[in-house]
Amino acid sequence: MNILLTISYDGTNYCGWQRQPNGKTIQGCLEKTLEELYRQEIIVLGASRTDAGVHARGQRGMYSIKDDGGINIPIEKIPFAVNAQLPEDIRIIKAEEVPLGFNPISRTKRKTYEYCIYNGVINNPMQRLYSEHIYLPLDIEKMKEASRHFIGEHDFKAFCAAGGSAKTSIRIIYDIDLLESANMITNKITGNGFLYNMVRIIAGTLVYVGLGKIMPSDIPGIILSRDRARAGKTLAAKGLTLLNVDYNV
Amino acid sequence: MNILLTISYDGTNYCGWQRQPNGKTIQGCLEKTLEELYRQEIIVLGASRTDAGVHARGQRGMYSIKDDGGINIPIEKIPFAVNAQLPEDIRIIKAEEVPLGFNPISRTKRKTYEYCIYNGVINNPMQRLYSEHIYLPLDIEKMKEASRHFIGEHDFKAFCAAGGSAKTSIRIIYDIDLLESANMITNKITGNGFLYNMVRIIAGTLVYVGLGKIMPSDIPGIILSRDRARAGKTLAAKGLTLLNVDYNV
Repeated sequence: MNILLTISYDGTNYCGWQRQPNGKTIQGCLEKTLEELYRQEIIVLGASRTDAGVHARGQRGMYSIKDDGGINIPIEKIPFAVNAQLPEDIRIIKAEEVPLGFNPISRTKRKTYEYCIYNGVINNPMQRLYSEHIYLPLDIEKMKEASRHFIGEHDFKAFCAAGGSAKTSIRIIYDIDLLESANMITNKITGNGFLYNMVRIIAGTLVYVGLGKIMPSDIPGIILSRDRARAGKTLAAKGLTLLNVDYNV
Repeated sequence: MNILLTISYDGTNYCGWQRQPNGKTIQGCLEKTLEELYRQEIIVLGASRTDAGVHARGQRGMYSIKDDGGINIPIEKIPFAVNAQLPEDIRIIKAEEVPLGFNPISRTKRKTYEYCIYNGVINNPMQRLYSEHIYLPLDIEKMKEASRHFIGEHDFKAFCAAGGSAKTSIRIIYDIDLLESANMITNKITGNGFLYNMVRIIAGTLVYVGLGKIMPSDIPGIILSRDRARAGKTLAAKGLTLLNVDYNV
C-alpha cells in the first residue's frame, strides 16, 4: 500500500528535507514518527529535497507499507495520528492512497514555489525567518517586466548552482507572478521542475533588476548565455517556500 | 534629552518587555545595547509592558540622556546604530526627540492591538508562533456581530485577569475589527488603554461566540456583570501583537 502525504513545515530549525546521520531533517523526523506508529521500517520519498531553512506548505512524501502493523487507522485519520507525535513545526495536512508503482518524483507535473522579499529600510522581526531583507528600494515594475522573460521553455543553466544532479538544464516555467503588499514582495513561480537553487537565483536576478544593476531586456541574453556569473546572486534559503506539487493523475 | 523609540519585536524568545534579574527581556536587551552605545546607565520606559511571548510592531520606549557620551549621532541615525548591535528579533524603527517631562505611559491617547487566530483543522507551521490555533469551525459573522458590543466606554472588569494594577476598570474601545483571510482571523482593537490580559480575554470571548457557546446578544450582559467567569478563556500570548501607540501631541 502506497500512501502519499501532503506536508507543511517551517524549515527554520531543520537541515533540510533529506535524512542525514547527524542533524535534524524533515524526512528523518517523519520517518521516525511513522516507524513508531507502524512498528516497521519506513522510507518517505519526498517530491522535493528542500534545502536547509526552506519552508513548505504543500511538499509531498510517499511511503509504502505491506501491512499497517495492526494499527488499523482509516487513511483520512493518518494526519491526526502522525501530527500528535510530530514537532509543531511539521504538519501532515493530507494522506491519500496512490497506486503501486507511483513515484512522487517522476510523476510530478508542476511545482509552485514562492520567494518572499521584505523590502523596507528596517527589517520586520516577525517576517525575518520567512523572507530575505533588501533595504534598498526596489523598482517592482521593472522586476515584473523582467520576470515575464522567464516564462516558457528555456535552458536555465545560468540559473543553476553547481552541485545539482539534473541530466538536462532545460525546464518550462508556466507562470511567474510578483505581488507587493505592506513592503513584502512575493514572487510565485510555477514550472515543470527546477534546477538546484534555480528559484533563489531567479529571485536574486529580479532583485538586481529592481536595483537597476540589470535591465529587464537583459534577461533573454542572460538565459541564452548559460553563464551563471551573469545572473544575480542566490538569495537566502529562508525566503523560499514550496507551495505545491501537482501530479499527473 | 528625551528620546522616544518606536520598537518592533518578535516576542517568541523573550520573557516579555519588563527587565528581570533572570530571563531575557526586551527592555533588558534594549537597555544593555543603549548602555554600550552611550557608556552610561540607561532606563527605557515602555508604553506597554507586553507579556512573555507577545509581539510588537509599534511599541514605544523612552530614555533620557544628559549627554550622548560623545557619540554624536544625529537622532535619525540612532535606529541604525542600535539595530547593528541588537538581536535580529528586535528592531528600532524610529527615534525622535520628545520634550522633557514627556511620559510615554500617561501620554498615551490610544493603543491598537491585533489578535490572530488560525482557524483550520490542521495548524499552519509558519504561523504557529504568531497565532492561536482553533481547529473547530468558527462562525465569523456571529463573532463580528458580538464584537460591536465592546465599542464604547464600559467597565471591563469581566475582561481583566487577576494581577493587574489598574485603579479603574473603565476603558473606552474606539474600534474593533474582524478580518478573515486564508484561514487567519485577525481581530484588531483600538482603545484608550487595556486592562491586564483584556485583549486576549476579548478574543477568547469572541471565540466562544464563534463556537456557539455564547450568543452575540449575551455580550452586553457579560460586560455589565463585571464577572470574569462569564467571559471566554484567555487566549495564548503568542497570538497578540501591539501594533501602535498614539500620543497626545
